Amino acid sequence: MTETLFVHPGKLHYLVREIFKRLRVPPKDASTIAEAVVAADLAGVESQGVARIPFYSDRLSARLVNPTPEIKVVQEIAAAATIDGDNGPGPVVGARAMELAVMKASRNGVAAVSVRKSNQLGMMGFYARMALPEKMVGVVMTNDVPAVAPPGGSAPFHGVNPAAIAIPAQEDSSPFVLDFSTREVDSGRQQDEIGLAIEILCGILSGGSFGPELSGAKGDGSEAAHIAHFFAAIQIEAFGPWLRFRNRIGEMLKKLKASSGSSGARIYYPGEPEYEAEEERRANGIPIPAPVASRLEGVARGLGLRDAWEQLLDTRKQ
Amino acid sequence: MTETLFVHPGKLHYLVREIFKRLRVPPKDASTIAEAVVAADLAGVESQGVARIPFYSDRLSARLVNPTPEIKVVQEIAAAATIDGDNGPGPVVGARAMELAVMKASRNGVAAVSVRKSNQLGMMGFYARMALPEKMVGVVMTNDVPAVAPPGGSAPFHGVNPAAIAIPAQEDSSPFVLDFSTREVDSGRQQDEIGLAIEILCGILSGGSFGPELSGAKGDGSEAAHIAHFFAAIQIEAFGPWLRFRNRIGEMLKKLKASSGSSGARIYYPGEPEYEAEEERRANGIPIPAPVASRLEGVARGLGLRDAWEQLLDTRKQ
Repeated sequence: MTETLFVHPGKLHYLVREIFKRLRVPPKDASTIAEAVVAADLAGVESQGVARIPFYSDRLSARLVNPTPEIKVVQEIAAAATIDGDNGPGPVVGARAMELAVMKASRNGVAAVSVRKSNQLGMMGFYARMALPEKMVGVVMTNDVPAVAPPGGSAPFHGVNPAAIAIPAQEDSSPFVLDFSTREVDSGRQQDEIGLAIEILCGILSGGSFGPELSGAKGDGSEAAHIAHFFAAIQIEAFGPWLRFRNRIGEMLKKLKASSGSSGARIYYPGEPEYEAEEERRANGIPIPAPVASRLEGVARGLGLRDAWEQLLDTRKQ
Repeated sequence: MTETLFVHPGKLHYLVREIFKRLRVPPKDASTIAEAVVAADLAGVESQGVARIPFYSDRLSARLVNPTPEIKVVQEIAAAATIDGDNGPGPVVGARAMELAVMKASRNGVAAVSVRKSNQLGMMGFYARMALPEKMVGVVMTNDVPAVAPPGGSAPFHGVNPAAIAIPAQEDSSPFVLDFSTREVDSGRQQDEIGLAIEILCGILSGGSFGPELSGAKGDGSEAAHIAHFFAAIQIEAFGPWLRFRNRIGEMLKKLKASSGSSGARIYYPGEPEYEAEEERRANGIPIPAPVASRLEGVARGLGLRDAWEQLLDTRKQ
């Protein structure tokens, strides 16, 4: 295979779901993982899409990730909770935590959920966006394996520690989604310090692990990852009328986009490029580069999913 | 006056308080403003200290800032509230909002308060730090007069929009205080996008003003500033035992500081430089450069506070 494949999102979702089912993940959870993975490929965030399947598959096969976690709310109060992810797949634990944050915010205005003993989430915007249909702002942060040294430090201490925030906008336009897992994060001082604050809100607030303790998921690391997260939801109507918010954010983004002046440059706000990528890919298919496709085929066939793989290839003819 | 003055923090607080009382701010509120201003000078954040007094004084005298605001909670639910600052001084409105966020978080685990119709806050860390004695994380964001153009934009759209987060640590060490009002903020793409998210959480969530609407406070702007803020408080014990958190953050910061390896460079975490500046300045006095002192003297004497000014000068002999 040397060409880029263009595949149908629904068929890709089916294949990914079947892969995770074969890896002993229960069907509902396998669907959640497939949603997170396909959402990344739809948004053009290929690094968090099916390109990650071999890594996820290796870790589930080696039982470094628990396919059937007992996710527990270990502590709870009106607008806050802590979840133990029991080393389950990141998207399964993450979606559960965000749902809880949204439910608590719908009752109390805002809410936060800290999570320990989880795994990589993939595209962060996926979880932040879960708050949007409820007319809420969604916030998500995670720690990750050490990659960034502090100023003056000789070795990586904390991870790139991405975060995302999603804010609802007019129905007919892209929501505002600022997602630091979708872009290069510079290792300048400020980013370091934000990274450290995220490390504390995730790894320490949850009673989980931090920085140098998170080496188990690095490369072909052979231990549980012990990744920790922090989720928050902010209900717009707790602060003022939804319609006022919606109209005002529409007005602001319109003014922002009109502010290029004589340069005529198109101004994008965060989330717009991903929104447009999704529209384009839903119409024309998700491109999967040949090397990624080959590895995906390998995983699928290795799990006895030759049929589902071949169905995926059929998409081009539809 | 050509030399740098070194003044006693308590006496500086007294002078600043008297200045704001003469500007018709009620005594309790004048104390709050003096605390915010002196805290900035103690922390070495001179740009938000007494150097700002002439600006504050001009705007209060011209009634562009309301010295006796009726600060109102216009909407409220368990963990969220919106405050109308009635164009009051930033520190008065800000301290009130952070107190409300802390009170709500003590009952519900986390809480957020949005604020409209306020003015410049000064050093953001001052408000974030208010959460620390309650064993909470404090978060504060504000919008400000337009200074930053979006990528591709021809004109400033939103402000530098600083934020701060304060996290409690061991009693005998500096808290973690990451304060973007204390340092240069680069105008790269990521900072722009963060700035835009802050603009929405402040100006739009509160029902206040945003970006280009905030020109009234620029330079010698002649209109009310309409600045908006967002405050949040996160109660540590809502997520897990306080002692575990305190010990783990102590462990983390100790490891961080030990990670310089053979370079031997001293590693500071956010908040430490300001904490050390405060210790040094409490011992040796707050340095006030001659031009700043001259302007401060002018304001003080213009308000009939020659005695308080001369008492301040006495400090050197103590």
